[in-house]
Amino acid sequence: MDHYLELFSRHMQEGGSAEGKREFLEIGRLAGQFPAARSRRDGIDAEISVWCSNDYLGMGQHPLVLAATREALDEYGAGAGGSRNIGGTNHYHVLLEKELADLHGKADALLFTSGYTANDGSLSVLAGRLGNCVVFSDEMNHASIIDGLRHSGAEKRIFRHNDTVHLEELISATDPDRPKMIVTESVYSMAGDVAPLAEISRIARKHGAMTFLDEVHAVGMYGPEGAGIAAGLGIADEFTVIMGTLAKGFGTTGGYVAGPAELIDAVRGFSRSFIFTTALPPAVVAGALAAVRHLRASDAERHRLRENARLTHRLLREHGIPFVSDESHIVSVFVGDDELAKRISGLLLERHGVYVQAINAPSVRPGQEILRSAPGAVHEPSEIRKFVAALDEIWQELGLTRAPDPRRPATTDG
Amino acid sequence: MDHYLELFSRHMQEGGSAEGKREFLEIGRLAGQFPAARSRRDGIDAEISVWCSNDYLGMGQHPLVLAATREALDEYGAGAGGSRNIGGTNHYHVLLEKELADLHGKADALLFTSGYTANDGSLSVLAGRLGNCVVFSDEMNHASIIDGLRHSGAEKRIFRHNDTVHLEELISATDPDRPKMIVTESVYSMAGDVAPLAEISRIARKHGAMTFLDEVHAVGMYGPEGAGIAAGLGIADEFTVIMGTLAKGFGTTGGYVAGPAELIDAVRGFSRSFIFTTALPPAVVAGALAAVRHLRASDAERHRLRENARLTHRLLREHGIPFVSDESHIVSVFVGDDELAKRISGLLLERHGVYVQAINAPSVRPGQEILRSAPGAVHEPSEIRKFVAALDEIWQELGLTRAPDPRRPATTDG
Ligand SMILES: Cc1ncc(COP(=O)(O)O)c(C=O)c1O
Ligand SMILES: Cc1ncc(COP(=O)(O)O)c(C=O)c1O
Repeated sequence: MDHYLELFSRHMQEGGSAEGKREFLEIGRLAGQFPAARSRRDGIDAEISVWCSNDYLGMGQHPLVLAATREALDEYGAGAGGSRNIGGTNHYHVLLEKELADLHGKADALLFTSGYTANDGSLSVLAGRLGNCVVFSDEMNHASIIDGLRHSGAEKRIFRHNDTVHLEELISATDPDRPKMIVTESVYSMAGDVAPLAEISRIARKHGAMTFLDEVHAVGMYGPEGAGIAAGLGIADEFTVIMGTLAKGFGTTGGYVAGPAELIDAVRGFSRSFIFTTALPPAVVAGALAAVRHLRASDAERHRLRENARLTHRLLREHGIPFVSDESHIVSVFVGDDELAKRISGLLLERHGVYVQAINAPSVRPGQEILRSAPGAVHEPSEIRKFVAALDEIWQELGLTRAPDPRRPATTDG
Repeated sequence: MDHYLELFSRHMQEGGSAEGKREFLEIGRLAGQFPAARSRRDGIDAEISVWCSNDYLGMGQHPLVLAATREALDEYGAGAGGSRNIGGTNHYHVLLEKELADLHGKADALLFTSGYTANDGSLSVLAGRLGNCVVFSDEMNHASIIDGLRHSGAEKRIFRHNDTVHLEELISATDPDRPKMIVTESVYSMAGDVAPLAEISRIARKHGAMTFLDEVHAVGMYGPEGAGIAAGLGIADEFTVIMGTLAKGFGTTGGYVAGPAELIDAVRGFSRSFIFTTALPPAVVAGALAAVRHLRASDAERHRLRENARLTHRLLREHGIPFVSDESHIVSVFVGDDELAKRISGLLLERHGVYVQAINAPSVRPGQEILRSAPGAVHEPSEIRKFVAALDEIWQELGLTRAPDPRRPATTDG
């Protein structure tokens, strides 16, 4: 057996994982006080401010969400007790699926245990069972999209990030009679830039392609009632399937797809990551339902998110701190070096109590390392000023290059 | 777009899913009263008794589990707020991973969002990154194992269910220098029978194979402290990796692998279903931790489970109701026909208020349809008597064949 352990040790050293074992920062995000949190390193606790959470709107600590979760916990217990088909469907699953279908203006919706399994499970069915399908996929699409498409076995053509000229080139060169699907995100998870959805939709219609839109970093945050970027543009109906998560804007956990009944039926009937697993706990679903309902009715959180994102963009620009895109609340400070990103992240944490995770491969390409910050609805303008001041100090101390044009770095390699 | 909807409608009618849309029974398992639950059909509520839940020990309603969940919910909110590497690691994740490693006597453990993603994510890394690996997999292994192995790209040899002679034949015929892995379950999810683990371990040692053991339907339920079937035989250390779920015996949700540090490091560093997804909510993990700790200390639930399983086996045998295996608490009444299984399930529910889901393809092979019942620690002996009496009445009414030897049906095709 030692033989195998050695093989894996060697593999870890050689391949990819230069660091060897990944260490995760242990934090306790304090409900009611977030972005404040307690970090624990080497047994020592510290007070920190979290700047890299995806709980963008603070719904994970919203009193309505906590109350709904507690109530369902008291009524139905801690788990679902089975897969959706075998004893695991609670009234809350049904209610939330209806709510999400309604939010996105689609006939039906289907819950998964996560956004990862939603992409994996639905794309493998949709692309896989559409005989002879060709999929056109943005080169920056999330790992879960890549995995779903890979598992579908469908032929795939990758277009350059947000490059609709390239997309149209590829789609024009494809047999008009073959079924086609275009798959993109709306707000890109790492760069924070936004896909040209109107143009993508035009190309899809012109060439008779289905569209699958991952709005994971947009649902709750953008559009009327938080229905996403496409809804904000008034073109949600032009996207065949809209996919989202409950784990970011909605503050809980789980994922979903919304779309026409025929397609959702197929995913429900064939998706392995949907069928062969325990359903989400009713208490989690009840919390998510409260979050979705609250964010349909309230614009306050979206308003604060937008204002905070704007302030962050403006201050970073004033200080010449390079960042990738000013199109969303995902503000990725560009570093472009593995070691340096870790060093800056370490300095932020130790000296300023600011936690922004350094993002390295495989989440971004080597040479595209970033500090992915997300000023949320929960941050105060004063905290944003402190955050940028901390970056400024570090930029000064380490003699780092200031940015004349913040959008340059990522789009070169894009 | 209608074109695509039609294609999918047709696909649903032709391929596999004869039923078209899958309908799930909506139930509310009442915390504190389970196996009692409320079902809702066509807007009408009814009181039922659940006989097909995987919350085998009732931990989903255990006061300690609910209290721990509530406490963590109050302290840390509803969600993790990020992936494990990016702001989503809470103290409870670290504590539960330590507890699970300790439970299984392994160096380390790693949490996933589900048992499905644990199998998928860990097998794709372990089998995929062990260069030139050959995997030997039981033909009845769960979909999540099949998917993980498929995604690993490793060469696979399927051995007949629980047939160690066939396994040894296949492994003997394989180049002794190639890395090898044997993958099995301990308690099989649908048949409820138990793998010959001692013999499998002997074969593994003789041929220098790693072993990966899915104890999803055993952890919490079997072995000292609920450590599983292998632990009960005193041979847990002979299995390289032990995989489990938090969603069945432990009553909550999530999955895990436990094993040597080198392998867990590799899975942590490379597994896509681990890396690219939001971590389990701290409150869920806190509940699971309470369940694991309680079941390490208490034998009462395991004792009741065993007694209830025995009583069910005995009564079914006395009434000649055919069932697949008497080796565990999973008692699958054998039907062998799609329509008939649904009909019996319907009669049980409507006339007797007993909910046992009919299991059809793809969860079992066509012709192997069952009513998968699971008398848990929560059922009363009087309820078990009623359950068997209800089956007896239906067997009588429909003139169904009685079983001389209950184990025959599954092992013929097994
Ligand atoms: C674009 C995108 N899609 C899907 C996911 C997966 O969502 P979840 O965290 O709910 O698994 C993520 C992030 O994790 C993402 O960034
Ligand atoms: C043998 C086996 N492995 C893995 C799983 C997946 O576990 P989970 O429900 O936690 O996803 C299941 C059941 O769902 C199973 O029966």
